[in-house]
Amino acid sequence: MNNIIIEPLQGSWQALATQPSPDSSIMAEIVTEILADVQLNGDAALARYSLKFDKYVPTSFLVSDSEIIAAEDEVAEELKAAISVAKKNIEKFHKAQLPGKVKKITTAEGVQCWRQYVPIETVGLYIPGGTAPLFSTLLMLAIPAKIAGCKNIIICTPAGKQGIIHPAIRYTAQILGLKNIYKVGGAQAIAAMAYGTESIPGVDKIFGPGNNWVTQAKKMVSMGETSIDMLAGPSELAVYADESCIPSFVAADLLSQAEHGPDSQVVLVAKNLGIVEKVAIELNFQLDLLSRRKIANQSLIHSRFIVIEDEENAFNFLNFYAPEHLIIASEKAKKLSSNVINAGSVFLGNYSSESSGDYASGTNHSLPTGGAAKTYSGVSVDSFVKKITFQKISKKGIKNIGTSVEIMAQAEGLDAHRNAISIRLKSLDNEQIQS
Amino acid sequence: MNNIIIEPLQGSWQALATQPSPDSSIMAEIVTEILADVQLNGDAALARYSLKFDKYVPTSFLVSDSEIIAAEDEVAEELKAAISVAKKNIEKFHKAQLPGKVKKITTAEGVQCWRQYVPIETVGLYIPGGTAPLFSTLLMLAIPAKIAGCKNIIICTPAGKQGIIHPAIRYTAQILGLKNIYKVGGAQAIAAMAYGTESIPGVDKIFGPGNNWVTQAKKMVSMGETSIDMLAGPSELAVYADESCIPSFVAADLLSQAEHGPDSQVVLVAKNLGIVEKVAIELNFQLDLLSRRKIANQSLIHSRFIVIEDEENAFNFLNFYAPEHLIIASEKAKKLSSNVINAGSVFLGNYSSESSGDYASGTNHSLPTGGAAKTYSGVSVDSFVKKITFQKISKKGIKNIGTSVEIMAQAEGLDAHRNAISIRLKSLDNEQIQS
Repeated sequence: MNNIIIEPLQGSWQALATQPSPDSSIMAEIVTEILADVQLNGDAALARYSLKFDKYVPTSFLVSDSEIIAAEDEVAEELKAAISVAKKNIEKFHKAQLPGKVKKITTAEGVQCWRQYVPIETVGLYIPGGTAPLFSTLLMLAIPAKIAGCKNIIICTPAGKQGIIHPAIRYTAQILGLKNIYKVGGAQAIAAMAYGTESIPGVDKIFGPGNNWVTQAKKMVSMGETSIDMLAGPSELAVYADESCIPSFVAADLLSQAEHGPDSQVVLVAKNLGIVEKVAIELNFQLDLLSRRKIANQSLIHSRFIVIEDEENAFNFLNFYAPEHLIIASEKAKKLSSNVINAGSVFLGNYSSESSGDYASGTNHSLPTGGAAKTYSGVSVDSFVKKITFQKISKKGIKNIGTSVEIMAQAEGLDAHRNAISIRLKSLDNEQIQS
Repeated sequence: MNNIIIEPLQGSWQALATQPSPDSSIMAEIVTEILADVQLNGDAALARYSLKFDKYVPTSFLVSDSEIIAAEDEVAEELKAAISVAKKNIEKFHKAQLPGKVKKITTAEGVQCWRQYVPIETVGLYIPGGTAPLFSTLLMLAIPAKIAGCKNIIICTPAGKQGIIHPAIRYTAQILGLKNIYKVGGAQAIAAMAYGTESIPGVDKIFGPGNNWVTQAKKMVSMGETSIDMLAGPSELAVYADESCIPSFVAADLLSQAEHGPDSQVVLVAKNLGIVEKVAIELNFQLDLLSRRKIANQSLIHSRFIVIEDEENAFNFLNFYAPEHLIIASEKAKKLSSNVINAGSVFLGNYSSESSGDYASGTNHSLPTGGAAKTYSGVSVDSFVKKITFQKISKKGIKNIGTSVEIMAQAEGLDAHRNAISIRLKSLDNEQIQS
C-alpha cells in the first residue's frame, strides 16, 4: 500500500482531507437546460428526459394504488420483518427529537416570548434507484417527515427500464402510508419537485441523495425558491483505531464504505503502524470475497491510512477532516468521543458498525459530507420544521422595555422604529397599568 | 392610494407576494472577481477594495484594544442602559434555547443512540455600518454565538471614511467581551472571512445582513466551503388588522418597516376597507414627521393594502406570502395566531410592535425573508451548533439488530455492509452474551 502516511504535519492536512470532486461546469450547463425546460414544459419535458436518460416513460408518473398494494406479495417475509425492526428503531429515536411543551419565557414583566415548532407543509423526497434501490433512505427521510407533521410528502424515484419501482421501495412507502410516489429520477425529478408540473406538485423543501446530476440540480434550485436538506457528496468514513480495536472488524467497516462507489472515501487513523498492517491484511482478504470488489478497490486506491500516535493530535486531524461517519474502534471509545467536534455520526466501540446506523439502529443515515459536518447536522425531525418566534407584549410590557427601544432606535437613526414605541407609550400616559 | 386590493383571487397571490429583486448578473461578475482576488492576495486585496469602495484603508484591520476601551466614554449613559436591558432580555430568551440534558435513547436492548449539541468552532459576524450602525445586530448574533459556546467569534464591519467604527458597535463588542473586530466591509469582508487573510482568520460559518454586494458574496461563498446563516433580502412586514386594531399603531408599525430601505416591503391585510382607510390617514400624517420619510415613501409605493374579510382566507394568503415579520393587530391575536404556518417572527396584539422585537424584547431580529420562512427559521442558538449523533452498540445490541441489517443490506445489494455485521455476529457465535 502506498497510501500510508506516518505522523503527517499539520501543513499537509488540507491535502489529506481533500476529496475527489467532479468537474461540474459542463454538468451545470446541461442541468440549467433541464431545469428551465421542466419549468416551462412540465410533464412533456419530464417524459422527454425520462426517455433519454432512463429509457422509459410511464403512462402515468404517479405510482398506482395497485402497484403499491402488490408490493406486499413481492417482498420476502424476512425482509418485511427487517424493515419493521428498522422502522420501529428509527421512529423511537426520531420521536425523541420532538420538542417538549412550548417554553414561554417572560424576558421582562409583560413581555412574553416563545418559539413554536411548525412543520414545513410540503416536502419532496428523492430516493435513488440506480445502482441500489435505497428503501432505507425512504425510511430515513419519510419517518422524520411524518413525525414532524408535514402535510404533504411527495416521493420521486426512477423506475428503471422496465418501468417498475423496486418492490422494497413500494413496500416501504405502503407501510409508511405514503401515496404520492412518482416514477421519475435524475435532475428532471428535482426540477419537477422545485417548480411543479401537471402531475407532480411543487414542494417547499427537497431531501435525499442522488448522483452528481441530482446534486447539481439540487444545488441550482436551492439558489431560488426551493430549500434543500444538504448537498450530498461522496460518502466518507473515518475510523480511529488503537490497540484495542479488532482489525477484521475495522477492515469490514472500511470496505462497507468503499463499496458505495469509486469516489467514496475511507480514512483510517491508527495509533501505530502495526494496527495499519493488521487491518491491511484483513482488507485484502475480505475484499476478494465481495461482489462489489471492483468498486471497493477503486475507492481504496484514493483512501488514506494515517498513523498518529498522540491521541489529541489524532482527533485534531479528525476534526479538521470532519468526516460524515466516524467509528472509534477502541475499548475506551466513550472517553475518546469527548474529543469529537466535527463529524456527522459517531460510532463507539468495536460492535458499533457503521452499517448498523445505515439501516436499523435508529439514527439517521442522511449526513453531511465533504467537511460540511463542521457546520451542518444530519437529517432529523428538525429538518422538517421551522421554529417560529412569537411575542406578546402587554401595556405593562411596553412601559418596561419601550424607553430602551426608543433610545436604541434613535441611536441607529431609525425614527419610525422609535415612533412605533412612542405612539404607544403616549397613549398610555394617563392610564393606570395593571399588567 | 392605488395599491388597495380587495378580496384578491388565489390566482393573483403569486403576483401580490412577489418582491422587487435586484438584477444580479453584473453584480455576480464583480463579486466573483473580488472573491478570487481576496483569496489570492489577502490583505493587499482587502486594502485595495477598502480604498475603492469605502475611501479608507486602516493601518491595521484589527480594531485596537484602546479603541474598544474608548467606547466606554463615547457612548451616552442612557444608550448604555438601553443596551444593557436589551442584552439581558436577549440573553434570557436565547439561554432557554439550550438543550436540556442529553437524552440517550435505547432503541433496542444494547443499542443506545443520542444527539449531542456541539458548537461550531469559528463564526464570522458581519455587522453593517453603512446607512445605520447596527449595534443591535451585533447583540442578536454575538449573544447566541456566545451561549452556544463558539470558540472563536470574528466580527467584520466597515469603518467609514474617517476610519472609525461607530462607538455603539465598539461598546457593544466590549460588553460582550469580543476582541476580534476588523475594519472591513462589503463583499471583500465576506471573502476575508470565507478564505482567511494574513490579518483575518477564515471562519466556518458567516452570519449577518448586508447590502446586495454582501448578500451576493455570501451566496457565492456558501456554494463552496463556508456556510452562511441565510440570504438576507429586503426586510418585510405584514400586518393583519381587524376592527379591534388601533389604526395609528398599525400605521406606525408599517412605517417602521418602510424606513429600512426603498425596497422594504409592507403589506397590510385588513378585514374591511374601513380599516385600510383609517390606517391610510394615519400613515400620511405620520410619514411627514419622519426624518427618513423619503425612503419610507419609496417603500410605500410598492406596498400593498389588501382587504380579505374571511379570516381563514386572510391567513391562507399570509401563509402563502410567508412574511419575515407578522403583526396580528387584534384583541384576539392569540386565537388567530393558531393559523400561522409560515412567518419568521409573530407579534401578537396591539402593544407588540415589531420594533420591540428588533431591539429589546429578547427574540432575534435575524429572520428569513423573501418567502424563506416557509422552510427556514430565524437565527437562534441552534444556528451556532451542530447536532452530532452518537451510538454505542453492545454485543447484545448487535445480536438484536444484526440480522435485520444483514437482510436489508443484502436487499440493497450492499455485500460489504452485510459483512460488517456478519463478521461481528460470527465472532460472538460461541460467546454467552450478558449485555
